[in-house]
Amino acid sequence: MNDTAAPLPATDRTRIRRVAENARYDRATLHAIIDAAYLCHVAFADDKGTHNIPTACWREGEHLYIHGSNGGRMVKWLLQGAQACVTITHLDGLVLARSAFNHSMNYRSAMVYGRFEPVADKHAALAALMDHIAVGRQAEIRAGNDKEFAATTVLRISLDEAACKVRSGAPVDDAEDMLHPVWAGVLPLVQVRGAPVADTRNTAPVPSYVAAWAAQPA
Amino acid sequence: MNDTAAPLPATDRTRIRRVAENARYDRATLHAIIDAAYLCHVAFADDKGTHNIPTACWREGEHLYIHGSNGGRMVKWLLQGAQACVTITHLDGLVLARSAFNHSMNYRSAMVYGRFEPVADKHAALAALMDHIAVGRQAEIRAGNDKEFAATTVLRISLDEAACKVRSGAPVDDAEDMLHPVWAGVLPLVQVRGAPVADTRNTAPVPSYVAAWAAQPA
Repeated sequence: MNDTAAPLPATDRTRIRRVAENARYDRATLHAIIDAAYLCHVAFADDKGTHNIPTACWREGEHLYIHGSNGGRMVKWLLQGAQACVTITHLDGLVLARSAFNHSMNYRSAMVYGRFEPVADKHAALAALMDHIAVGRQAEIRAGNDKEFAATTVLRISLDEAACKVRSGAPVDDAEDMLHPVWAGVLPLVQVRGAPVADTRNTAPVPSYVAAWAAQPA
Repeated sequence: MNDTAAPLPATDRTRIRRVAENARYDRATLHAIIDAAYLCHVAFADDKGTHNIPTACWREGEHLYIHGSNGGRMVKWLLQGAQACVTITHLDGLVLARSAFNHSMNYRSAMVYGRFEPVADKHAALAALMDHIAVGRQAEIRAGNDKEFAATTVLRISLDEAACKVRSGAPVDDAEDMLHPVWAGVLPLVQVRGAPVADTRNTAPVPSYVAAWAAQPA
């Protein structure tokens, strides 16, 4: 369970069959995809059917963390042990091939299967979320009070049943299509950081993590 | 069902309770969120549990379309009538509030509930996908042959049970926190188009939709 250098075992659910050469089962790839994300999509079923909820996420060690209001549907059902599938997808570009059916996308995706468990130390976990957003900010903000913490549930899911799929690079066409006279290549898509927008009532100086924001790739 | 000017009815599944002021039930918002996306996350359950699969999507009228290999798990179960929840989320920024628990994100998300149905006219549907990627390209590529079309299933889901949630703008803090001495504002995230990368073996001239790519916001 804790051999983080070993590849993730492929289970009935995580063994990738479609374009299997794009499958990645190493934890370094899984960690990088999660760490590059601010949100994930959490799928689970309740008495009304299957749901798919976007929510903030972060990673600590071999767990993916989320949080939510105690009264929300997602928190309620995940706490009751509903099986979840958490997916993160970064889209990196459109792949324009010479033939229609070889068109593709470049992407990095991660899927995590399992059941969430409640996190007892909510203070430490939500401080880690703040660090994921902006290192140093946790010490500057008005900290959560007992009432706010009491209304919030923090949950985590083990990364032990997970798989990634990554595609990058040029189109792959069939040999007999290589002379078809159409432009082939990649149209990149990139998530970038825009210039920070201060609140109109802000009077505080710009902290270093805000000043540095737009200079870095997201 | 076809009154596209009327708001979407809120059902047990689509009525938004958390931060309900961010809910949107108008079809114009729903269409805009889908049309701005190249991919969605499709949640459904099979005999192995709940899954959450990223896949290309596009819209025609009041349906969201996807496609996939006939042999894949997703196509197989959706064709059997598995209930699905399709979610699209565009992340627009991190919202830095003065207090920990008022931090948020700016985003545009759409959720669609229902069951997919097979699309008989795969040629027309996949031409619409190509138009979503690059208008004009459909006439230039090596078209799909009978074998390729036969191996692919196109599915669509009605937009009749759907809801959107949109947050934009500045942080919203409690009145008593407004003087807390910390920077407050938004750190924007933007999906942008990078410079096209021609395949190393490309010999075709650059079409207008490729030339125009990097000049437009994604």
